Amino acid sequence: MRHVISPLDFSVDELDKLLDLAVDIENYPAKYKDICNGKKLATLFYEPSTRTRLSFESAMLNLGGGVLGFSSADSSSASKGESVSDTMRIISCYADICAIRHPKEGAALVASQKSSIPVINAGDGGHQHPTQTLTDMLTIRCLKGRLDNLVIGLCGDLKFGRTVHSLINALVRYSGISFVLISPKELRIPDYIRREVLEKKNIPFLEVEKLEDVIGDLDLLYMTRVQKERFFNEEEYIRLKDSYILDKAKMSLASENMMVLHPLPRVNEISVEVDDDPRAVYFKQVQYGVYVRMALILTLLEVETC
Amino acid sequence: MRHVISPLDFSVDELDKLLDLAVDIENYPAKYKDICNGKKLATLFYEPSTRTRLSFESAMLNLGGGVLGFSSADSSSASKGESVSDTMRIISCYADICAIRHPKEGAALVASQKSSIPVINAGDGGHQHPTQTLTDMLTIRCLKGRLDNLVIGLCGDLKFGRTVHSLINALVRYSGISFVLISPKELRIPDYIRREVLEKKNIPFLEVEKLEDVIGDLDLLYMTRVQKERFFNEEEYIRLKDSYILDKAKMSLASENMMVLHPLPRVNEISVEVDDDPRAVYFKQVQYGVYVRMALILTLLEVETC
Amino acid sequence: MRHVISPLDFSVDELDKLLDLAVDIENYPAKYKDICNGKKLATLFYEPSTRTRLSFESAMLNLGGGVLGFSSADSSSASKGESVSDTMRIISCYADICAIRHPKEGAALVASQKSSIPVINAGDGGHQHPTQTLTDMLTIRCLKGRLDNLVIGLCGDLKFGRTVHSLINALVRYSGISFVLISPKELRIPDYIRREVLEKKNIPFLEVEKLEDVIGDLDLLYMTRVQKERFFNEEEYIRLKDSYILDKAKMSLASENMMVLHPLPRVNEISVEVDDDPRAVYFKQVQYGVYVRMALILTLLEVETC
Repeated sequence: MRHVISPLDFSVDELDKLLDLAVDIENYPAKYKDICNGKKLATLFYEPSTRTRLSFESAMLNLGGGVLGFSSADSSSASKGESVSDTMRIISCYADICAIRHPKEGAALVASQKSSIPVINAGDGGHQHPTQTLTDMLTIRCLKGRLDNLVIGLCGDLKFGRTVHSLINALVRYSGISFVLISPKELRIPDYIRREVLEKKNIPFLEVEKLEDVIGDLDLLYMTRVQKERFFNEEEYIRLKDSYILDKAKMSLASENMMVLHPLPRVNEISVEVDDDPRAVYFKQVQYGVYVRMALILTLLEVETC
Repeated sequence: MRHVISPLDFSVDELDKLLDLAVDIENYPAKYKDICNGKKLATLFYEPSTRTRLSFESAMLNLGGGVLGFSSADSSSASKGESVSDTMRIISCYADICAIRHPKEGAALVASQKSSIPVINAGDGGHQHPTQTLTDMLTIRCLKGRLDNLVIGLCGDLKFGRTVHSLINALVRYSGISFVLISPKELRIPDYIRREVLEKKNIPFLEVEKLEDVIGDLDLLYMTRVQKERFFNEEEYIRLKDSYILDKAKMSLASENMMVLHPLPRVNEISVEVDDDPRAVYFKQVQYGVYVRMALILTLLEVETC
Repeated sequence: MRHVISPLDFSVDELDKLLDLAVDIENYPAKYKDICNGKKLATLFYEPSTRTRLSFESAMLNLGGGVLGFSSADSSSASKGESVSDTMRIISCYADICAIRHPKEGAALVASQKSSIPVINAGDGGHQHPTQTLTDMLTIRCLKGRLDNLVIGLCGDLKFGRTVHSLINALVRYSGISFVLISPKELRIPDYIRREVLEKKNIPFLEVEKLEDVIGDLDLLYMTRVQKERFFNEEEYIRLKDSYILDKAKMSLASENMMVLHPLPRVNEISVEVDDDPRAVYFKQVQYGVYVRMALILTLLEVETC
């Protein structure tokens, strides 16, 4: 039995297989519609995240399985002082697989240690969010046709944005990847990623402040939300939040084949006027998120997919 | 693909078909029990409404489908600043049909505009609540045998009660309908309904203050709750809330064939001593609400019912 | 049609049949996996209890049925002033069976009186929690092989702990039972149980203050949580909460065949170092809780299990 706590828990080969399965699910959904009959997914959301929770639930229902769980800590036993470890042991009696989201870093790992069912980390604080990264990888592979030889722009809050950190970690395993890191100085990529990941592995990267200066060079632009809850004070938030807004004007500078991804929810960092641009694939990305979670559930449950 | 935002979205003919289907569902439930296998309903409740939400969920489960969603805005992405439009685009990837309830007028319409799945308005503020109206219509047609030639009493809060406004709009399309409007002066039917609907279409109506003066003339009595949240101040609420309470004494003045409906929840506007009177059909009405929602889901999903 | 409001609603014979069914479910789960196809369970939780709610939901899903409901009063119609009676009449139109949890004593009984579907009390204040007692009984019968001739230690908060009171009431119906009641003076078993149950039925019992003095004599040790919400003030809670902590040292004084049960959630009354002791069966108990709820649902729905 295995868990998925970090996006790097899968080797490149394993990841290839997982993404292949996701593609097969996209192409032949009927093949999979009863495959998890009688299986149950528990969604343990200690902090609300509609998008992620419903993506998991949709995935399990698509496979013919059942779903149970909670959507916020208020309606869980956590308020009675129960540890995540104990809750996980209990949930192991109720379900066959579990997706857990928790505000504390490391909570998913702790949960997995006492679990007798596979645990999927659905986000633990600012730390990891592997199924978002798998979603991003599947989207890129399906829509760009490859995961190597790409110039990838990462824009917005690169300091606190865990999806960005995870995506960098995941993509540096492929050849011919280079990054353009677009952010205000205050929200630059952390040192441990700059040094331990990019520089150590000799990955070419550029740090710039203006999106319009570099958008023309990108194969992919990964936009991120300036998350209010990550700021230390309100004024900083207000000063910076509108700095990196993608609009039609900036899109006109980009190549015809560039694609815009976003982990969502977006607030106003992408203008709605961009939504109808065929290069805006962030809503398609949501659909890929369901397919990759279906593939993940099948893989972790070791369901025979022949 | 079509949505249901207002009770008037269906023509009289379409409504007839929908109600016919609901009656068939009531008579032959087994025929429909797997008909939505593999389909998913999303219930997006930005404000709590147990009764309405569970009615939808029960309807979808009766059809063999699956359900996912949220029951209050706290556990949704709304708190992260996501627009209803974006949420709806995302939900379109997760489900095949959606029921949305929102405190803001017009929210369901906005949601439907970007949706790629059918959207059912499950209540948007004081505005519309079409499935309640469909429920009322089915109840009347099944239990009175007709939707025309009825004297209909509407009692209670006629100013803010959206179910009353919707029901008037829906019933004036049938011939031989007249209304008796029973309310305190402060909570009379709004001018735009009196003038634009009743007077314009030459529908006979009477406005009175005392239920006991007119109850004997009614084919139907539609009671409504005096909703605390609609009042501007506490004292007004306390002064008026007990004005229009239906009890055994008042029921003794009504005809044997009169029927009492109520959109529920009731607080104390109908005394519990009335519950066992065979003319009290407000709990049967709940059951019809499930049948009509089943018919609505099938209709919007364009499921072949042969 | 019958409801389960109190653990004593079943006779000893009926209970035997129920536990036999639960054992059959444990041994042959595949036999039961579609048996409730098309049936729906409503979980009405007016106060949160993840463990109990999810146990019911897991049970119903294991039987192939569907689930709907709410997990806290905030997301129910209760906030609009609807009575439990009315809610229950409505739920009767939505589901085939219902599990209700409510902070008020007697709420489940009130709910059952107007219900047209079977109602299971999933806890009503400090009063009753029959499915916990059924879980305890099944665990004891399966793991000790009998429900009679046992020396049972009950430790912790014996004053407010409803699970302890229910278990005493349930076990005194078997022969050869004796109790060792281990608690601080302030949290002793209430007089009405001491006099009306134990003394009246001539059940041998001992009241002691120190767990280590008696642990060697026990066949079973039933630990309970010192529930913060039962205390009148914070200081009392802090003074007493650590008084009765089970650890390795105390376990070393117990017999090889003794078993430790706990209704969970535990806070720190059982040290985690005890978890791996084979005599610690409180997590197995959770699994038995699912089996017994499956048996209960089948019994109340009168499903043919041949």
